[in-house]
Amino acid sequence: MSKKERLSTEAYKGVRDFYPEEQALLNYLTSVMRSVVERVGYVEYHASVLESAELYRAKGAENEELTNEQTYTFLDRGGREVTLRPEMTPTVARMVAAKRRELGFPLRLYSIPNVFRYERPQKGRLREHWQLNVDLFGSRSLYADAEIIGVAYGIMRAFGAKESDFEIRLGSRNALEKLDMELINREVSSENRKKIRVLLDKKGKMSEGERQKELEQLANGPFEITETADIVEIRRILSDLGVTNATFDPNIVRGFDYYTGMIFEVFDTHPSNNRSLFGGGRYDNLTALFDDEPTPGVGFGMGDVTLRDFLAVRGLTPPYRPPTHVYVAVATPELVGGAWALAAELRQQGVNAALDFGERKLGDQLKTASKHKIPYLIVVGQNEIASSNFAVRNLETGEEKTLAREQLAAFFLNL
Amino acid sequence: MSKKERLSTEAYKGVRDFYPEEQALLNYLTSVMRSVVERVGYVEYHASVLESAELYRAKGAENEELTNEQTYTFLDRGGREVTLRPEMTPTVARMVAAKRRELGFPLRLYSIPNVFRYERPQKGRLREHWQLNVDLFGSRSLYADAEIIGVAYGIMRAFGAKESDFEIRLGSRNALEKLDMELINREVSSENRKKIRVLLDKKGKMSEGERQKELEQLANGPFEITETADIVEIRRILSDLGVTNATFDPNIVRGFDYYTGMIFEVFDTHPSNNRSLFGGGRYDNLTALFDDEPTPGVGFGMGDVTLRDFLAVRGLTPPYRPPTHVYVAVATPELVGGAWALAAELRQQGVNAALDFGERKLGDQLKTASKHKIPYLIVVGQNEIASSNFAVRNLETGEEKTLAREQLAAFFLNL
Repeated sequence: MSKKERLSTEAYKGVRDFYPEEQALLNYLTSVMRSVVERVGYVEYHASVLESAELYRAKGAENEELTNEQTYTFLDRGGREVTLRPEMTPTVARMVAAKRRELGFPLRLYSIPNVFRYERPQKGRLREHWQLNVDLFGSRSLYADAEIIGVAYGIMRAFGAKESDFEIRLGSRNALEKLDMELINREVSSENRKKIRVLLDKKGKMSEGERQKELEQLANGPFEITETADIVEIRRILSDLGVTNATFDPNIVRGFDYYTGMIFEVFDTHPSNNRSLFGGGRYDNLTALFDDEPTPGVGFGMGDVTLRDFLAVRGLTPPYRPPTHVYVAVATPELVGGAWALAAELRQQGVNAALDFGERKLGDQLKTASKHKIPYLIVVGQNEIASSNFAVRNLETGEEKTLAREQLAAFFLNL
Repeated sequence: MSKKERLSTEAYKGVRDFYPEEQALLNYLTSVMRSVVERVGYVEYHASVLESAELYRAKGAENEELTNEQTYTFLDRGGREVTLRPEMTPTVARMVAAKRRELGFPLRLYSIPNVFRYERPQKGRLREHWQLNVDLFGSRSLYADAEIIGVAYGIMRAFGAKESDFEIRLGSRNALEKLDMELINREVSSENRKKIRVLLDKKGKMSEGERQKELEQLANGPFEITETADIVEIRRILSDLGVTNATFDPNIVRGFDYYTGMIFEVFDTHPSNNRSLFGGGRYDNLTALFDDEPTPGVGFGMGDVTLRDFLAVRGLTPPYRPPTHVYVAVATPELVGGAWALAAELRQQGVNAALDFGERKLGDQLKTASKHKIPYLIVVGQNEIASSNFAVRNLETGEEKTLAREQLAAFFLNL
């Protein structure tokens, strides 16, 4: 095949290849998430990335744009319109509505799906990312709201973040609706009411004085959103739990149409990255799309891309270690049978052992072990097989230790 | 919203919703796979389900059909032709070619991706399934072939299968090529040579005598495929490992074009399900699509759908248990604060505890715990809070045991 005809080795635009080190980091992120959410009683579900396109059309005007311009939607060969899910909430609402009578409430569900957006790739935004989704169905209790926020808080702490590293800002759809009523009473046009929402979302992106002035102009008078009783109570429950970084923020709006009560966002407090990391809220009517008897819900979604940035800036990303304990190298090619037998023996005893087949020089075998960041090396030579004594080399420190064949497994497993 | 306008709660055709019990089974399957492959030194990678369509076009004639009729291929909004991967091997070959100089060989990689085929859903075949992929790059050693087959064998055993439950049948592209040469020498037409391949694949689907007769007719003479030296050696290595159910089977062909050496399939020996479960083989030229210096590879793919069937028929599917240790119920609604505090305390100590917020009658709270198959229940009442003694009920046996508050965590964690 000529060079010209070779295929590109690049991944599709805006998505990632996960080589072992990147995948290990993703596995670390998901394992921390899992352990926190399972501690609070959440159980895992999953669904296909393929959904009927109508699932995203139904939610109303605000989402039209998302469906029409930002999703991967196509016709399958049978003429069905299919979308690669841009978010998980409609899917989980569909699944809960489908089995409402069997599931048992309150119902705690989590999933770590990949979600797709067709948008220009940029820092913190890719076309595909992985997103923890945590949802609690069948409760209208403010304790449920507090629990969901507490889970988000618990995950941040489990990653090693200090309370000062992030801030939980609570908003309220109720407060925003009360404001809207007030503005309608003041005869503020719907156009200006829309402009107000956009301005609320611009907090931190312009001077605070200027913003307030503009808000008052648009509102035909004084402008203030006051904390509602439900938010006060949610904050009280959280503070009983020891959470001190949750505040009311009238500027929290959140894009999705389906929220009906509390909404929240978790902000990075780092000066170089002061932005919303993720968020969620209460959505009590979403399953009404499918079901006569809607099931209330509250939850959040947390993406891996922004989380990686958050951890990297603070040095909270753990170093890579492969699952492999030891690399078994071969001094000369004809000893591969002996090395194979040793590796088989170690594996039998529970050691994760990778074997070289002796097709390259010993120096190159060592390089492979180092490139793979495997912590220990054993070189199998004639003497080692004859004496049943093996030098175990620590590839980080260079230290060597000679062990009898039957001591090897215990050495690796007691690390 | 009127009933008429409600959205369907069904998943897209041919894909599955994974409710907690189904997801727990998938998690069980993948955790067994992981532990076996990591024992042999494999490390995990991953990639997006979106790939450039050309990746599947390039492999040649036999795959044209797959690309044209059986894939999900569509144009993105930027006019790029995108395919939902139908298999993982082209992706991993692309990734290895992209970083050949950095990766270090031999390189052991595994992944558990979802793969898509556009086909009529039927037993054992869905439009999306999850598939373990295990690949070893950079070795031409027959020990590498044997290792890959040994991993497949080890996974079957780790699921509880006996050697008599399955059979490993080894074929050889070399043997098939030798046959082809022989047939060309006999002036067998290319049309008849193709028919012969199809007949080989039909073993077990027609009478053996009839098949042999037809083969001899098409071959203009005696018809036999003899075991090659490489297959003999691979079987020897495997038998040293204790594998006794690997045989040479001249009828093993396998569909993919990219195989160049050993090929194998694992067959279910159950009379009601006597068919190929999964398979793989050696492909030494695949990365030549991307790279001047091709890297040899050998590997296999194992799908979750056929595996589930295999395990179910033999009663090897483990029963569902949620990760949740205990359900904390509330005798009367006003005690939710006390129950919340108890749940928080248990979680702090490492217990996975789900909490009811007291919005339903106690009987309904119990039903929720049972539906979720949570093994233990605690009911928080006035007396319990006052006395700090809690009855722990085993929801399977109905047994109750009263424990002091500070004994609870140890009870659940020492189960």
